[in-house]
Amino acid sequence: MPGIRGLMAFRPETAKPLNELVEVLLQGASRLSKGERELIAAYVSGLNECKFCAGTHGAIAKHHFGDSKPVEEVKINPESGLFSPKLRSLLAIAAKVQKGGLYVTNTDVEIAREYGATDLEIHDTVLIAAAFCMFNRYVDGLGTEAPAKEEIYDQIGAYRAKNGYLVPNNKVI
Amino acid sequence: MPGIRGLMAFRPETAKPLNELVEVLLQGASRLSKGERELIAAYVSGLNECKFCAGTHGAIAKHHFGDSKPVEEVKINPESGLFSPKLRSLLAIAAKVQKGGLYVTNTDVEIAREYGATDLEIHDTVLIAAAFCMFNRYVDGLGTEAPAKEEIYDQIGAYRAKNGYLVPNNKVI
Repeated sequence: MPGIRGLMAFRPETAKPLNELVEVLLQGASRLSKGERELIAAYVSGLNECKFCAGTHGAIAKHHFGDSKPVEEVKINPESGLFSPKLRSLLAIAAKVQKGGLYVTNTDVEIAREYGATDLEIHDTVLIAAAFCMFNRYVDGLGTEAPAKEEIYDQIGAYRAKNGYLVPNNKVI
Repeated sequence: MPGIRGLMAFRPETAKPLNELVEVLLQGASRLSKGERELIAAYVSGLNECKFCAGTHGAIAKHHFGDSKPVEEVKINPESGLFSPKLRSLLAIAAKVQKGGLYVTNTDVEIAREYGATDLEIHDTVLIAAAFCMFNRYVDGLGTEAPAKEEIYDQIGAYRAKNGYLVPNNKVI
């Protein structure tokens, strides 16, 4: 099984809380849309050069948005006018978290608040970015295989966008 | 409440899987001692310059070992003869994971195996290191307060070494 799913099969005791964490963060109730949250996850994974996570969560975001443009655009220009000012300010915080927690400033948080982000949205953005700094390291630190074919990511994306993270998917991954 | 405990009170839905993850990794059944696992957590937190996590998990490691020497030594020389060859090889992997998952090589893993590390110990070392790259970013990215006094860390260390991570500790944190 490619990517994190092989690791999860090897160690179900840690797979359980890991899946529960992403289920709350990426699928649970939030003022941020599921597409926006998956976009943050894909963006951070791209910054960490984690092919499997960037491909997977990019495809999940695409299926939530019903459009591949946001995922393509965030790789080139996270300050794009395609994104709302609030989402742009949260992507900027996520990029700081990817470098390290101490890079985030009060000003970054104040800007996000000015654009309408709540404390919960800021909290969740930081934790999504931090969590993908974990997942990316986990997947690549243990040398898992990332599928080469785009269509595999698309299948995973469709499945996870529909079913979330608590359901195993033995047919795809 | 200082450090991660304030964040956990703010967002109990994510606190639950986060605490379950560290309980499995740092307190669950393992061929690595609890002291060794907390030492890996403290070491990575130090590399990430996360004062709260380095102080807390250093103190927990100290209480497991019944000795402050390993925690002091790992900051200065993770290749110290104080540590077994196996633990040194796992600390080297943890340091690579802290930089990024792609830094870990097959040779790093082969060396750990030669010194007797099992697949499960290597897996858990990578996931502990990756998880603390998350926790450190979470704690510092949201600007939580790290206690200044050494005795606070010592109290937390004694409590967590004894009780693990699933029990709230409202008196200390």
